[in-house]
Amino acid sequence: MKAAFRNSCTTLSRSLNPNPSFAFTLMPLHLFISTSFPPKVTGLPLSATFCYSASSTMGDGESQALPCFATVEKQFEDFRKHLDDSGSLRERIRAVAIEIESATRLMHSSLLLVHQSRPVPEVLDKAKAQIGVLKELFNRFAEILQECPGQYHRYHGDWRSETQTVVSLLAFMHWLETGSLLLHTEAEEKLGLSASEFGLDIEDYLIGICFMSNELPRYVVNQVTTGDYDCPRNVLKFLTDLHAAFRMLNLRNDFLRKKFDGMKYDLRRVEEVYYDVKIRGLAANGNTARDPEGVQGQP
Amino acid sequence: MKAAFRNSCTTLSRSLNPNPSFAFTLMPLHLFISTSFPPKVTGLPLSATFCYSASSTMGDGESQALPCFATVEKQFEDFRKHLDDSGSLRERIRAVAIEIESATRLMHSSLLLVHQSRPVPEVLDKAKAQIGVLKELFNRFAEILQECPGQYHRYHGDWRSETQTVVSLLAFMHWLETGSLLLHTEAEEKLGLSASEFGLDIEDYLIGICFMSNELPRYVVNQVTTGDYDCPRNVLKFLTDLHAAFRMLNLRNDFLRKKFDGMKYDLRRVEEVYYDVKIRGLAANGNTARDPEGVQGQP
Amino acid sequence: MKAAFRNSCTTLSRSLNPNPSFAFTLMPLHLFISTSFPPKVTGLPLSATFCYSASSTMGDGESQALPCFATVEKQFEDFRKHLDDSGSLRERIRAVAIEIESATRLMHSSLLLVHQSRPVPEVLDKAKAQIGVLKELFNRFAEILQECPGQYHRYHGDWRSETQTVVSLLAFMHWLETGSLLLHTEAEEKLGLSASEFGLDIEDYLIGICFMSNELPRYVVNQVTTGDYDCPRNVLKFLTDLHAAFRMLNLRNDFLRKKFDGMKYDLRRVEEVYYDVKIRGLAANGNTARDPEGVQGQP
Amino acid sequence: MKAAFRNSCTTLSRSLNPNPSFAFTLMPLHLFISTSFPPKVTGLPLSATFCYSASSTMGDGESQALPCFATVEKQFEDFRKHLDDSGSLRERIRAVAIEIESATRLMHSSLLLVHQSRPVPEVLDKAKAQIGVLKELFNRFAEILQECPGQYHRYHGDWRSETQTVVSLLAFMHWLETGSLLLHTEAEEKLGLSASEFGLDIEDYLIGICFMSNELPRYVVNQVTTGDYDCPRNVLKFLTDLHAAFRMLNLRNDFLRKKFDGMKYDLRRVEEVYYDVKIRGLAANGNTARDPEGVQGQP
Repeated sequence: MKAAFRNSCTTLSRSLNPNPSFAFTLMPLHLFISTSFPPKVTGLPLSATFCYSASSTMGDGESQALPCFATVEKQFEDFRKHLDDSGSLRERIRAVAIEIESATRLMHSSLLLVHQSRPVPEVLDKAKAQIGVLKELFNRFAEILQECPGQYHRYHGDWRSETQTVVSLLAFMHWLETGSLLLHTEAEEKLGLSASEFGLDIEDYLIGICFMSNELPRYVVNQVTTGDYDCPRNVLKFLTDLHAAFRMLNLRNDFLRKKFDGMKYDLRRVEEVYYDVKIRGLAANGNTARDPEGVQGQP
Repeated sequence: MKAAFRNSCTTLSRSLNPNPSFAFTLMPLHLFISTSFPPKVTGLPLSATFCYSASSTMGDGESQALPCFATVEKQFEDFRKHLDDSGSLRERIRAVAIEIESATRLMHSSLLLVHQSRPVPEVLDKAKAQIGVLKELFNRFAEILQECPGQYHRYHGDWRSETQTVVSLLAFMHWLETGSLLLHTEAEEKLGLSASEFGLDIEDYLIGICFMSNELPRYVVNQVTTGDYDCPRNVLKFLTDLHAAFRMLNLRNDFLRKKFDGMKYDLRRVEEVYYDVKIRGLAANGNTARDPEGVQGQP
Repeated sequence: MKAAFRNSCTTLSRSLNPNPSFAFTLMPLHLFISTSFPPKVTGLPLSATFCYSASSTMGDGESQALPCFATVEKQFEDFRKHLDDSGSLRERIRAVAIEIESATRLMHSSLLLVHQSRPVPEVLDKAKAQIGVLKELFNRFAEILQECPGQYHRYHGDWRSETQTVVSLLAFMHWLETGSLLLHTEAEEKLGLSASEFGLDIEDYLIGICFMSNELPRYVVNQVTTGDYDCPRNVLKFLTDLHAAFRMLNLRNDFLRKKFDGMKYDLRRVEEVYYDVKIRGLAANGNTARDPEGVQGQP
Repeated sequence: MKAAFRNSCTTLSRSLNPNPSFAFTLMPLHLFISTSFPPKVTGLPLSATFCYSASSTMGDGESQALPCFATVEKQFEDFRKHLDDSGSLRERIRAVAIEIESATRLMHSSLLLVHQSRPVPEVLDKAKAQIGVLKELFNRFAEILQECPGQYHRYHGDWRSETQTVVSLLAFMHWLETGSLLLHTEAEEKLGLSASEFGLDIEDYLIGICFMSNELPRYVVNQVTTGDYDCPRNVLKFLTDLHAAFRMLNLRNDFLRKKFDGMKYDLRRVEEVYYDVKIRGLAANGNTARDPEGVQGQP
């Protein structure tokens, strides 16, 4: 069915038409000829003020021209339909976005338990249960948007903040599970998105990753509290590499840039925690080259 | 050439892919398998912190898997390219928008003379000279946007306020010339836009019409000053019909709604001028086409 | 004396040196050689931390190198002098600016009487008395600034708003007296400024003219109140031409642009007053082409 | 060629003329004499509203006086040119500033590795590669600014924040290499600036030094983490001296003052780290040059 839909849309979707639902309703108005004469000509009935009598100046009997006010009225009638269609589309998008928000709230609640040193697998299991729900909801987005090709970015603002939250949670879960960064393609896969159909916007992905980074200092602090003294070094390495990767990007002065600038503080906070652990000799003697041997940390 | 371009894009443009320039650069990463193990596993070399050892769990010696950090680095390298491309596209759009602004400034300067009761045809001739320039500039927009199908709305914000000004000026000129409302299709035609290629956004059209309405009270005041006592009635009819047409629309609480709300004040001001003219017996009685001779102002 | 001063400064003034008072005080520091060695070398007395012992590593007897901390201390000593000089210069400028503000306040007070229909010559006489004071004060500016060539724009912000007010008042007086726009060169002449010595910044001039425009609607309203029914038309012509002249300029999105945008409202307000006067038949039958004969205005 | 340029500008550059490009275009307007008569005199043709009839009062038939509106129009035509010139100059400056920002971003990325305890020489080598680029870019600034003598401070705001970042990075590198403060003259030398041509603004230098100070607490924390327990004391001495040097200055209530106030927090944080190290017996005792062997951490 999807394929069928796509075929039938081929012609339209090639265009850069910003008002697709409208394209079908506004018929060519060849018949309307707005003639030029000074606006001072008056005395027409009210309903004709939009167009001072096209036919009266044409002279000949070709008065098959639509009455002008009717043309204007038809235009606004079409607009009304167009705005209503677009409004109801927006409401449907909004409804899905609210469901996504609700699913992420559940997910987040589960994940917060990780700060109370609940076992990671247990925490993840509960959170993972929502991934299927999210996948289904993003699929509904894709279906809604497929009705209006080329309109992804028109409505993008209506679901982007929810998407960023989803990415941040998925990335945090992925990191808890693997210690590695959730890639853009992996995020798309988890959500059943595909670059060739309904993809994950790159800036939304990047902002979501920045949000995840904000969670790490708290995680480190709580892990150290429960005696996990290796955590700071691992997180620090991860964050340092992530920060370096972001620095490759030429960010504009926008929201993403602002979020990335905040990552610096996460990095510093984790460095400070690592410092506290090291100076007390609590950290394992990992592979850092300069660790003097024989340091004994006693709190 | 255009046709060729469009054909080659057919596949892509069917999708709802938000990152099209990116789709070509990010290769499928089948080889990368992020395995699950607790983040506490440490002691890996720095370059592997993004992904603790993919190969270690694959078992079967197929360690042709890309090193993980390289994968992440590649992803960000692709992002960098994507963001740079999108940034340079934005700069090109911005450059055209600046030229449009400059052309509308010239147009506006010419049109302002109408408030000094310069003959309408003379005023219009100068302003019309810019329409060709605008057509050419909107054509450049269409060409730029055709390079990235489905991205119209991604960059729309970068030229919409300029487009709204263009519509307001064209509609004012059209009204001066014909006394009628410039239709959406007529505006598209003047600018060489086509709904099936690169159309005129309906909300931009409507906002432009609201801006035009703001110009009318001033026009009426100045016309009455120079003795054109029929102007208020004509403008009032036009504005009343326009206001009624807008009222057919179900407007959201957005910029268009705010602009439309302002139209009410234009209407009121024109009503007051019409009142001033009528109460002094300056306006013609009824709907005769021309100024009655011997009008005498009586308070 | 001025000439002598200028000659002595020839060399300096050719440069783009941003810190001229400083150029004389910081001697070349050839003698200081900062050697490279790791910062871990420690154990030096406190005063040497800025530079870990240049001589100690040079080995040979060439210890004529200045002690490093002394070099740093000397630099900051020089900075202190520089900042104090620049601070006291700023205070002197500020003192003159305050006197200018005081003179313009007197001037403005006199000019306000014009809104109470006091005879223009009487009003102008009192205001003109301050022009000599202003000339003297701007001469003091010139003298202060001549002490530090190339620094005009460094301190410009400290007197620009006062200058703008001065221009607005002079231009209003000039307009009251001649009905014409005070030119930039005329303003400079009145203030004893000269483009080749200490000129009037063009943006300050233009902003001052915008401020003057803000005064005109009030003037028109009050003149009509006292029965001067020709005033609106004259002011309207003046403002219309001024507005058109400003529209020739390519204004950036800055303060001047904002002020100019405000001029539109002055223009509209004056149009409205002219309208009120005309519709009541109060205005003289001047040379406007379209005035219908025989209109009789009776309030 | 530079010398030639400078000679030809000698006259101009002596002045305090704020509008130099303008000085050449506005010819003396001796011929224009704005005469005084009440603004009520009306009935002149539109084009004369800016100046009611200069010739009428000259008496002696010498009506070769320019028509007044033409004079005003010419003035604004000159202004237009002046503003366009200044706008395009600003764009050229901005373009160089953007390149500087890009070079400093690369530099900063390299320097950040110092926090991951990469060998200082390696880190510095990569960062130093950008100094040549910066030198070249500042040379372009100097060339641009030399086209308009006395305008350094007019456009200074367009490159000062970039310059401050450059100073902070150069000073950090210099400190890493030598343990000493980069002097103002040394910074100028590295950037190919010269006090007599295009110098480094002292406040920009000082603000840059404050920014460098902000980097030190993080450096100290990370050094201690890797076992370099002497670092805190060295940095503390450096920062204490630097802070004392700044305290010699009489700072106004401006940006520099605010940045300097922040230095206090850097100092405190480094003191705390030094305290942590000392109280645990990790720091070397006294001023021996090298790490004592066998340091044992005791709480």
